[in-house]
Amino acid sequence: MKLSHWLPCLQWGRTYNRASASQDGLAAVIVTLMLIPQSLAYAMLAGLPPVTGLYASILPLLAYAVFGTSRTLAVGPVAVVSLMTAASLTPLFPAGSPEYIGAAMLLALLSGLLLAAMAMLRLGFVANFLSHPVVSGFISASGILIAVGQLKHLLGVSASGENLLHLLPELLQALPQTHWPTLIIGLLSLAWLGWARGYLKQTLQRLGLSAQLAGNLAKAGPVLAIVVAIIAVSLLHLQQAGVKVVGSVPQGLPGLTLPTLNLELAVQLLPAALLISLVGFVESVSVGQTLAAKRRQRIQPDNELLGLGAANLSAAFSGGFPVTGGFARSVVNYDAGAQTPMAGVFTAIGIGVSVMLLTPLLHDLPQAVLAATIIVAVLSLVDLRSLRHTWRYSRQDGAAQAATLFGVLLIGVEAGILIGVGLSLLLFLWRTSQPHMAVVGQVPGSEHFRNVERFAVVESPSVLSLRVDESLYFPNARYLEDRIGELIASRPQVRHLVLMCPGVNLIDASALDSLHAIVERLHAAGVQLHLSEVKGPVMDQLRRSDFLERFAGQVFISQFQALKHLAPQLTRETLERADTPSPIRDERNVS
Amino acid sequence: MKLSHWLPCLQWGRTYNRASASQDGLAAVIVTLMLIPQSLAYAMLAGLPPVTGLYASILPLLAYAVFGTSRTLAVGPVAVVSLMTAASLTPLFPAGSPEYIGAAMLLALLSGLLLAAMAMLRLGFVANFLSHPVVSGFISASGILIAVGQLKHLLGVSASGENLLHLLPELLQALPQTHWPTLIIGLLSLAWLGWARGYLKQTLQRLGLSAQLAGNLAKAGPVLAIVVAIIAVSLLHLQQAGVKVVGSVPQGLPGLTLPTLNLELAVQLLPAALLISLVGFVESVSVGQTLAAKRRQRIQPDNELLGLGAANLSAAFSGGFPVTGGFARSVVNYDAGAQTPMAGVFTAIGIGVSVMLLTPLLHDLPQAVLAATIIVAVLSLVDLRSLRHTWRYSRQDGAAQAATLFGVLLIGVEAGILIGVGLSLLLFLWRTSQPHMAVVGQVPGSEHFRNVERFAVVESPSVLSLRVDESLYFPNARYLEDRIGELIASRPQVRHLVLMCPGVNLIDASALDSLHAIVERLHAAGVQLHLSEVKGPVMDQLRRSDFLERFAGQVFISQFQALKHLAPQLTRETLERADTPSPIRDERNVS
Repeated sequence: MKLSHWLPCLQWGRTYNRASASQDGLAAVIVTLMLIPQSLAYAMLAGLPPVTGLYASILPLLAYAVFGTSRTLAVGPVAVVSLMTAASLTPLFPAGSPEYIGAAMLLALLSGLLLAAMAMLRLGFVANFLSHPVVSGFISASGILIAVGQLKHLLGVSASGENLLHLLPELLQALPQTHWPTLIIGLLSLAWLGWARGYLKQTLQRLGLSAQLAGNLAKAGPVLAIVVAIIAVSLLHLQQAGVKVVGSVPQGLPGLTLPTLNLELAVQLLPAALLISLVGFVESVSVGQTLAAKRRQRIQPDNELLGLGAANLSAAFSGGFPVTGGFARSVVNYDAGAQTPMAGVFTAIGIGVSVMLLTPLLHDLPQAVLAATIIVAVLSLVDLRSLRHTWRYSRQDGAAQAATLFGVLLIGVEAGILIGVGLSLLLFLWRTSQPHMAVVGQVPGSEHFRNVERFAVVESPSVLSLRVDESLYFPNARYLEDRIGELIASRPQVRHLVLMCPGVNLIDASALDSLHAIVERLHAAGVQLHLSEVKGPVMDQLRRSDFLERFAGQVFISQFQALKHLAPQLTRETLERADTPSPIRDERNVS
Repeated sequence: MKLSHWLPCLQWGRTYNRASASQDGLAAVIVTLMLIPQSLAYAMLAGLPPVTGLYASILPLLAYAVFGTSRTLAVGPVAVVSLMTAASLTPLFPAGSPEYIGAAMLLALLSGLLLAAMAMLRLGFVANFLSHPVVSGFISASGILIAVGQLKHLLGVSASGENLLHLLPELLQALPQTHWPTLIIGLLSLAWLGWARGYLKQTLQRLGLSAQLAGNLAKAGPVLAIVVAIIAVSLLHLQQAGVKVVGSVPQGLPGLTLPTLNLELAVQLLPAALLISLVGFVESVSVGQTLAAKRRQRIQPDNELLGLGAANLSAAFSGGFPVTGGFARSVVNYDAGAQTPMAGVFTAIGIGVSVMLLTPLLHDLPQAVLAATIIVAVLSLVDLRSLRHTWRYSRQDGAAQAATLFGVLLIGVEAGILIGVGLSLLLFLWRTSQPHMAVVGQVPGSEHFRNVERFAVVESPSVLSLRVDESLYFPNARYLEDRIGELIASRPQVRHLVLMCPGVNLIDASALDSLHAIVERLHAAGVQLHLSEVKGPVMDQLRRSDFLERFAGQVFISQFQALKHLAPQLTRETLERADTPSPIRDERNVS
């Protein structure tokens, strides 16, 4: 195990040169401009003082640059994780209170420890619990929930709630208290940001700028909104007119601080930390893999766990909150030409400089502008058409996605994701608990055996050939017993049952018990069990039990060999029937 | 849907005659004699007044006889379910208090409703979550925990605790307070019951009784212990000497009562009720299936759910607590010749008569005798050798069994079973998250394709043939992307990748997304994906997406057809190489 395996920066660092540095530097400038408003906004979304968002965008970026394997992933506060942070902390403490801030740091600490532990134990596969439909439903629903939650800042009213059932009535009730100056600022920002997202780049190009420059400038659209809004608020004394602003933001780099180290609270936050870690990891790895593939690079999931773990640990010790790799900003980083994680280092420096110099200027920034930034960003995450696609492809996957979507919207983020994961597992169990089994027969003129219901094949009356299209393991162990019982009961003349196992990739202890039970019951009925086409690894495992000695049957290399042994005459006759054409009815080349 | 499907009693009831009745009657007498001490003992174990055990052995038996499909299953209070009842209620109320009794009835109500709902929704497969190793570990650990928990009654001291870590120190501390007369009664009972279990039948046979009669009398061993103990206690005035007795047991049948209908409490008890239902169902179905198979009968799991649900509902409304089918007593019922569930009806009548007539006689019954009854019964459930067997067969299954065993012993029954189920699922995901994949080549002289690492086969340099030995679904979707990326990266001359899918029984939405991603990445690398040997149901599903149009490759009926199309010359040459003998190295007929 080489050191450079755990420190990927040693690999790209060796060949780092001025060309890479200038490309990384340019990307860093653009990402910094994008990250400042996002950091403030996502901190607000997480129920934290805006400056914590900036804090969470300094050290975590450095930590990821040291341990992460993606060349272009941009780490920091992201919408979904901020929402989950708020959802897990608001029931415990008043938002923004010192206890709340301490608990957010503790959440980052726990998340970092969990991710690092998963890296050490190579438990990255746990993220597989979150299937694509569940993640997709979760992200769409989070986007809607976040956008609706930000409407109160746009309206200048108070409203809260962890799901739409609480939020919407509160918003409707508060509608008469709408603060019109705030709403106007909010709507103007929304209009500008929405337009900039769609058309700014084209417009700038039409004005004669190069595509590259126009694209980069367009990404600074939110910064322009912020600058204009700050100027308008301070010139028109809008704060005195009741427009809520960000207020005093502390100046200077975060000190190294300890999160609240309260064991009882830690135990209470652990489930939330686990969910945040898994969701953050899945989101980050998806982005990282997509971007890496475009340049024929690869990322290592275990290193990603470590990188994100280190990022969260450093967020915990520098006044931040849970972070992960963000989709939009990583794409911007990639498009702007970032070559190595050094772009992240430069971005961290950019944010650090901003914290030292710019924070006094942020005092008059209206919260409505930040809310508009969030709304525009998260609405791009909402993809309801995918639900229709998934449902059309598979009812089970569609149900899991819908359950996650509505669970998040109507109950809450954590409940929603747990419902989705639970339902995926349940539907999966249901699906494999009744595996496809086919009675097979010999295709005339060949050694092949195919499903009697799809092909014109020859069956022996005394030998039942049964193909099981699933691993034999606990979800279907009992079903196998039932199904074989039924088949044998309906075929009194059968003396041998050959279980054809090309699709059996595993026989676990539950299924082994069932096989023993099946053998006993078949013996009582005067039928002998045999196996055929058992794969090597499965055979190796069976040899570690006493099944092969006790079941009194044979293990044949192929179904043909089994029938040749058990019903020699019929098998030979069928093989020699060269007259019959290939009797395939159902399957064909579809290209 | 016929009425007799839901009321199996209509089927056996039609042909019921005097011969069956006399056999059922005899079995009922023996089971009643066995059930009286067991009911009292398991009620004590559940922390309830002894009479509730008798109440739980009347109506539930009638209900099961109406709805159940097993001919010989004997329903009533059982050790494991009583332990789970106590574990879920003792943290809430003082044992034996009216609130505790009401909550036990509520638990039976919830359990009954859950079982009935599972029957209606055909959710019996949920019980598959409890794999054999988990159930085995759980039952062994429960047996140990129950036996240790009963030692306090044998010693005549006070001790409590939900796991060994609490129980053992308390017992050791209480050791100096041992009440010697109680201990002597307990040890004598234990000795008698242990001896009777092993040798009473033989001894009676040696005294000249027929095997049948000796066996039946031997089953009444516990009754003799009870009678002798009651006489000894009342003659020697042992209650005044400090021997704890059962005390006043109300006389007469239970009135129809309502359980505590407290919604908040119900929500709190729901998880426990679910676990009790599942464990009870699994235990009951295993016993039922085993006994039914011996007589070539079948049981219907959905009807069993309904039967047990009805049994628990009637327990809830007649002052009882959760019940299920018991192993020992069902075997006794079977051995004694029970033909139909009418034996259960007769047993219920026997217990009903006992409640009306015998309860005054039970006043002087020492608790130590009941404890001895429990200990002897549950120690037969403990099977630690099975752990070694499971571990030898499969590390994963062994780990799940050990985790359940130690979880129950060291933490508690509910935590233990949840840990076991969670670990099973986690290990299962881990196992399928990295499926076996084999690069395959053509076996010379044939149309077969086998693993290049196990067979001497011919590979085309430009066509990579990859066999996936697992369904493609969310646990392994990401792994597939990784693995194919690696393979292609290491084979620069490859132009076509044929995914051979005989072991792929499902492609879910997550895997479909991964396939899309794989196709895109392969295109970028100048490689075209094809599929071969796709099963009918999988093909049907793929047709419901746009994958087949978009992936630009072909779906071949067999791997041979694929290679014949993509590398015709090599394939033809290999097929014609008749000189090479069958190159099988690894697999062989092991019989």
